[in-house]
Amino acid sequence: MSDSATPSLHPSVICTVDVVLLTLRDTRLEVLLAQRDRAPFEGAWALPGGFVHPQEDADAAASATRVLREKTGLEAPYLEQLGTYSGLARDPRGWSIAVVYCALVPLEDLEQALHRRSTTRPSVARLHDAANLGRLPFDHDAMVAGAIERVRSKSQYSSLPVHLCGAEFTLPQLQRTYEAVLGEPLNKVSFRRKMEELNVLEPVEGAMQGGAAHRPAQLYRVREAYRQRLSMLERGL
Amino acid sequence: MSDSATPSLHPSVICTVDVVLLTLRDTRLEVLLAQRDRAPFEGAWALPGGFVHPQEDADAAASATRVLREKTGLEAPYLEQLGTYSGLARDPRGWSIAVVYCALVPLEDLEQALHRRSTTRPSVARLHDAANLGRLPFDHDAMVAGAIERVRSKSQYSSLPVHLCGAEFTLPQLQRTYEAVLGEPLNKVSFRRKMEELNVLEPVEGAMQGGAAHRPAQLYRVREAYRQRLSMLERGL
Repeated sequence: MSDSATPSLHPSVICTVDVVLLTLRDTRLEVLLAQRDRAPFEGAWALPGGFVHPQEDADAAASATRVLREKTGLEAPYLEQLGTYSGLARDPRGWSIAVVYCALVPLEDLEQALHRRSTTRPSVARLHDAANLGRLPFDHDAMVAGAIERVRSKSQYSSLPVHLCGAEFTLPQLQRTYEAVLGEPLNKVSFRRKMEELNVLEPVEGAMQGGAAHRPAQLYRVREAYRQRLSMLERGL
Repeated sequence: MSDSATPSLHPSVICTVDVVLLTLRDTRLEVLLAQRDRAPFEGAWALPGGFVHPQEDADAAASATRVLREKTGLEAPYLEQLGTYSGLARDPRGWSIAVVYCALVPLEDLEQALHRRSTTRPSVARLHDAANLGRLPFDHDAMVAGAIERVRSKSQYSSLPVHLCGAEFTLPQLQRTYEAVLGEPLNKVSFRRKMEELNVLEPVEGAMQGGAAHRPAQLYRVREAYRQRLSMLERGL
């Protein structure tokens, strides 16, 4: 081993978390951006992020949850680690490690949180069309692209898209959510079979949704055990 | 944002890389462990790892490559980022971030490298049966479990196992490699169709392997473009 110094004598590494928060507006994926209030890139719209706070955060996932809470008011959305971006080239302040998390949030939860937050302090976060973000600072373009690729590919064989639905939804609504994320239509019969295999839904007792034009449809919610973790399919959709 | 200090004023975070190097001996996955030459856990067998060296490494992947080179003599094996483990609880020295990489190496390449290295300095690294590792220090048990799960699940729909084969191999040898990783037999006809779909192999001109008992089999190698990256199947094996 070539390390003989104690860690504190090593040149310091900048340790941050960044969050790619994705939500679905109709059939369009949107990404949350926050306006930077300091250099570098002061004033630019970027992924919400910040330094890890070793004296406050239990781990980097807790740092990401804290950053999201500070910038949006959201508590405990569905969060998974996307990957870590590191090195000398990505941040003008020096050698850095950014642990990146992907958060999925139903649009109405996010809009309510942002609205509540805006009544007490100036809004710093806003949703942007994921397909037309323009050029973001740091390596945030790569992070967004990585998150979208991960969500698309994982939606093929898991319950991931349920985290983009509200608290209660019908099976046709869930199917449209999957179709929007995957960008392709799905067969209704095989979709329903796959949802049964995933086994993450439970009917909301006595709750139906229906208008004049449609037969009433049963409302479902995600079972408690699957609100922070995924169920995986043996074979994809 | 609650950060107003410059990064260097933040309490320091210990930044390391750890490598889960996997290889296949017959049908058994083995993991490389290195004996720790310092506290904490001095003398224990653990995953090879070390601090990132900001003045030497371009990024954390370069740190992982350097650590593997120092401990095994291997140059540029197939490497992918597994994930990042972080927080106050995982290292007795303090709040830490460990970026973990998974390396796949053909057994003979690794054994040759370890042998060459042992002629110049004492050996610090050794292969252990992945199924009988005992208890490892830090959160290295979780890292090994995570790497094996990743390799198993990714082998279902990608060219990943080719990185466990030597430079040249027959299709039956490659099929046995997939079967060993997946832990289940595969149908020969559909396996070959999937390998064609992956399109990562090229025949070695004029090279056949065969003994008295078998019809000679064509030897293949991995195409240059796929030695450091994967090809993915539309639908898994």
